[in-house]
Amino acid sequence: MQVAIPIPDSEISGMVAHSLEKVFSTMLHREVTLVSQVSQDADGQADAPIHLPLDPNSALVVGTVGFLGSVDGVIYIYMNEPLALTLTCTILGLEPADLDGEMHETVNDAVGELTNMITGTFKNMLCDQGFNCKLTIPSILRGSRLTIEPIAAAIRRLFQFETQGQALIVDLLLKPGD
Amino acid sequence: MQVAIPIPDSEISGMVAHSLEKVFSTMLHREVTLVSQVSQDADGQADAPIHLPLDPNSALVVGTVGFLGSVDGVIYIYMNEPLALTLTCTILGLEPADLDGEMHETVNDAVGELTNMITGTFKNMLCDQGFNCKLTIPSILRGSRLTIEPIAAAIRRLFQFETQGQALIVDLLLKPGD
Repeated sequence: MQVAIPIPDSEISGMVAHSLEKVFSTMLHREVTLVSQVSQDADGQADAPIHLPLDPNSALVVGTVGFLGSVDGVIYIYMNEPLALTLTCTILGLEPADLDGEMHETVNDAVGELTNMITGTFKNMLCDQGFNCKLTIPSILRGSRLTIEPIAAAIRRLFQFETQGQALIVDLLLKPGD
Repeated sequence: MQVAIPIPDSEISGMVAHSLEKVFSTMLHREVTLVSQVSQDADGQADAPIHLPLDPNSALVVGTVGFLGSVDGVIYIYMNEPLALTLTCTILGLEPADLDGEMHETVNDAVGELTNMITGTFKNMLCDQGFNCKLTIPSILRGSRLTIEPIAAAIRRLFQFETQGQALIVDLLLKPGD
């Protein structure tokens, strides 16, 4: 099925990369680089195998926020637990030992905030192009061997980023909105 | 933190139960019963331990859809894989063997459709009360030991349902919208 998203693919990829780079630079003083990308059409056809370069034996932490408006979508940002902990400590200027007892909740809050800021930056770029939309409530998913699978009628763009040798995945589902 | 949702708690619970019962009755000719409920405030305080009566050794299938408008929220519906397969076969009038080769994708589509219909019914009831909202793109999560964790500023209502001896969980995150 053809789903016409009114933004060229190369532009979407640039917007996602810019959103991550901006938030990582501002909040984490850390570089993040887009390494590869897989495009999956609404009929499920992908232009490359969908393989997440994340350690399946380490728990995953996934932040997610949806958006709704001229374009509808959901962004999932996933990383292994050690990276989630590193980013949390960087944001807060703390060592992992300092989080003792409240580590789980603190990591959730930090990853939720990062997800919100990245999706918010992406949303603002959509808005600048005339596609207004609003964000839904963020939430955090945790699990092992966790996968996110779109159902029909949305296109999917899977972006693999790398930050200091660690992988971070952005999974973007999009469909035309109002 | 107090988050004022303009709908009484008992009513929300009735709306969720009605949405499930209606979709199960129409699509599955199957009963589903609300067994218990946990309420968690936006500050993370819950009125009972949050425990999901789902087999952690069986993979979970979770359907999720967000909604945005006068009230913002996300619904997650989770069940073990065997129940997901049973419901899929019931909807399609097929035996599991008939799904061979495409089982995974067919289950995703069926659980996605059920999630969409249940959330759509809930959304229409919100609308009838004057709270208009729209649904985001549905997606399916799969994993083991999968948990969904709200971050601050949303209330959470966790409903345990039972259908023919099997558990099904509805996790509702809500916050005031526009």
